[in-house]
Amino acid sequence: MNAPLAFDILHRSPSSRARLGRVHTPHGHFDTPAFMTVGTQGTVKGLVPPLVRDAGAQIILANTYHLMLRPGAATVARLGGLHAFMGWSRPILTDSGGYQAYSMSDINSVSDDGVTFKSIVDGSSVHLTPERSIEVQNTLGADIIMAFDDCPPSVDPRTLNQARQRIAGQSARARKARDYDHTRRLDEANERTIRWLLRCVAAHARPAEQALFGIVQGGVDLERRSRSAAQITGVDLPGYAIGGVAVGEGFSEIVRVVEHTAPLLPEARPRYLMGVGFERDIVAAVRAGVDMFDCVLPTRNGRNAFAFTPAGPLRLRNAVHAEDPGPIDPDCDCPACRPAAYQWDTPGGRPFSRGYLRHLFMAREMLGPILVSLHNVRHFQRLMVDIRSTIREDGWSAFGRRWPVAFTTGPAIPPEPG
Amino acid sequence: MNAPLAFDILHRSPSSRARLGRVHTPHGHFDTPAFMTVGTQGTVKGLVPPLVRDAGAQIILANTYHLMLRPGAATVARLGGLHAFMGWSRPILTDSGGYQAYSMSDINSVSDDGVTFKSIVDGSSVHLTPERSIEVQNTLGADIIMAFDDCPPSVDPRTLNQARQRIAGQSARARKARDYDHTRRLDEANERTIRWLLRCVAAHARPAEQALFGIVQGGVDLERRSRSAAQITGVDLPGYAIGGVAVGEGFSEIVRVVEHTAPLLPEARPRYLMGVGFERDIVAAVRAGVDMFDCVLPTRNGRNAFAFTPAGPLRLRNAVHAEDPGPIDPDCDCPACRPAAYQWDTPGGRPFSRGYLRHLFMAREMLGPILVSLHNVRHFQRLMVDIRSTIREDGWSAFGRRWPVAFTTGPAIPPEPG
Repeated sequence: MNAPLAFDILHRSPSSRARLGRVHTPHGHFDTPAFMTVGTQGTVKGLVPPLVRDAGAQIILANTYHLMLRPGAATVARLGGLHAFMGWSRPILTDSGGYQAYSMSDINSVSDDGVTFKSIVDGSSVHLTPERSIEVQNTLGADIIMAFDDCPPSVDPRTLNQARQRIAGQSARARKARDYDHTRRLDEANERTIRWLLRCVAAHARPAEQALFGIVQGGVDLERRSRSAAQITGVDLPGYAIGGVAVGEGFSEIVRVVEHTAPLLPEARPRYLMGVGFERDIVAAVRAGVDMFDCVLPTRNGRNAFAFTPAGPLRLRNAVHAEDPGPIDPDCDCPACRPAAYQWDTPGGRPFSRGYLRHLFMAREMLGPILVSLHNVRHFQRLMVDIRSTIREDGWSAFGRRWPVAFTTGPAIPPEPG
Repeated sequence: MNAPLAFDILHRSPSSRARLGRVHTPHGHFDTPAFMTVGTQGTVKGLVPPLVRDAGAQIILANTYHLMLRPGAATVARLGGLHAFMGWSRPILTDSGGYQAYSMSDINSVSDDGVTFKSIVDGSSVHLTPERSIEVQNTLGADIIMAFDDCPPSVDPRTLNQARQRIAGQSARARKARDYDHTRRLDEANERTIRWLLRCVAAHARPAEQALFGIVQGGVDLERRSRSAAQITGVDLPGYAIGGVAVGEGFSEIVRVVEHTAPLLPEARPRYLMGVGFERDIVAAVRAGVDMFDCVLPTRNGRNAFAFTPAGPLRLRNAVHAEDPGPIDPDCDCPACRPAAYQWDTPGGRPFSRGYLRHLFMAREMLGPILVSLHNVRHFQRLMVDIRSTIREDGWSAFGRRWPVAFTTGPAIPPEPG
């Protein structure tokens, strides 16, 4: 078997566990620590592919759950596979579909065989197993594919409010069950996750072209995290992920779990913290030794007029921005903030103003979500570029001055500065 | 007074009244016959400005009605004027707001002073007069501004169905009026339009920077068109428009009115047919001597999965396209059909497939409207490029073979070819 993935560690931070690296795939490399831009349904929402590239994204994450339901993996394959389908020549990672099956659908049953759920597209009953997830991912053709895992809630869902119960991926049926035993559920998920991983490895039909990553579970219980890590890393794989984090448990819990779990993963393999996160989550996890991240925040929040800056976010619908001629962030080098750098010949090279962006959102124009998503995608790539140079130079104190938002305490979304 | 606009006629077709020309404005030139891409609220819907430029658009039309209501002309001015506001360095034309006031709003009153209507943004009562329209357009700062005209329905609205009544710009109140006299309304509109034009000229505060065009009315009555043309062209202006066309009266009526009216406008000035149209409308009007067009079709239809091709339109939601790997139009050179020409590095330089575009529309992804709008904007610019070279070479028969859609008879939207 040829290796579909190679990971070079180029530098290690002397003052933390952070590493600087580069991952090589059949569709080129990406630098680590890396933030993967999310393209759920085979498109980064609102952005033509060259804009995603120009924003510095080196790898995109697409969702198996959505693509298997619509348009279907076979259709993607007939249209040339996922890279050709979405017009993206660079690396792609697909998740297993498990997390969305748990969090987005009405679950009909979970058994050792797999999960049966109701499709969000047409309401039909869909059965997803480790074998089926890998078959779909083999058909889609991403460079990195993820093991199908059992995703328990990280904390007892009966202690959460309803919105967080949904995030925690607990079906209505299980939530109501009087006999739900959270610690038993965590143990069951751990055991299933390793058994399902072995089935994924056995089912993987394209091991020379697609790198399969395993996923460590265990909730917020460090002892269970250790046990899951030992089980999963017992299987020799090109990379390992930490799953079940940032599903409603808060910053300090995320940090506690990640600082415990990341060092348990093999030093020589990329470590991927799934679904994370805000700037401070990323910085803390990088310092704990994590190499890869993904999150919908840049585009999801961008569509809602929420613009990230190193000093904290702006809400561009606010009236204070109505006649502000300045850009979102004068230090940002995205096409919205610095159009001349991209041969966008605006008058005098002027940026798109906060006032104009506010107008676009008030008028419900697509260009508002487009420009702010573009800015936000670049914001997270700028963060990663700066993190990588900070690792090389071990310059964390200067980094902290440049990215105050990454060292906030209190709520994840601080009050608007402007 | 310096001239804000110069029009060079470069070639005249020997076999028709068509002319090849170039219009020079303070923000550069555009070639004629020209199709102006519509950016109603200060953005071409879904397209960042460099994509509009790359699609070949040389001039954009923005709507005074929308911008005066939101964000307001003063706000646009404080953000640097319309060009800086929307990040467009090239020519811009604004309409007067009259047509939208009649067609989109509940009219409270129309008098010799002006129109009072209910804002579609906040329901407030807005009074628009010739002086106010010009003041707003002076504040916005477009290169070409339009006279405020009285827009009667072209045909008696009581003979139209409800949808076409709305298009015809007739308020519910007038429609129901038993004593409505259509010919009297046309005469009233003609008389008001010339009186209002003189008020526009007197109110125009930036005649050295902004070219004011007059508008000929008269409905589908050729005698009234002649009378209006004589009145309007009696005022020396840098350009003249034909208004009140394509408001529900059908292809043959459009052609009859335009073939009659265009030759009545001064040979040495650009002639602008407002709000037109489909390919065959444009070709017929070019051959009658018209130089400028605008229409929302490329973006409005593009947002609804309707893709223009020289052979006729495609409806990309249709199931027949689900696994079609081909582009919208193999001969098209837009970024969706030929990405490599724009350094969009899709795998193997492959186009965005009909199958992928269908998926985007089925999944309600913004990228569907974005890519099809981009294709459609380019489609109309390709049409104009070909029209211009056809005028130079007098090659109309070969043109007809390349653009069968422009010579269809019957309904404006022919059945889908594929």
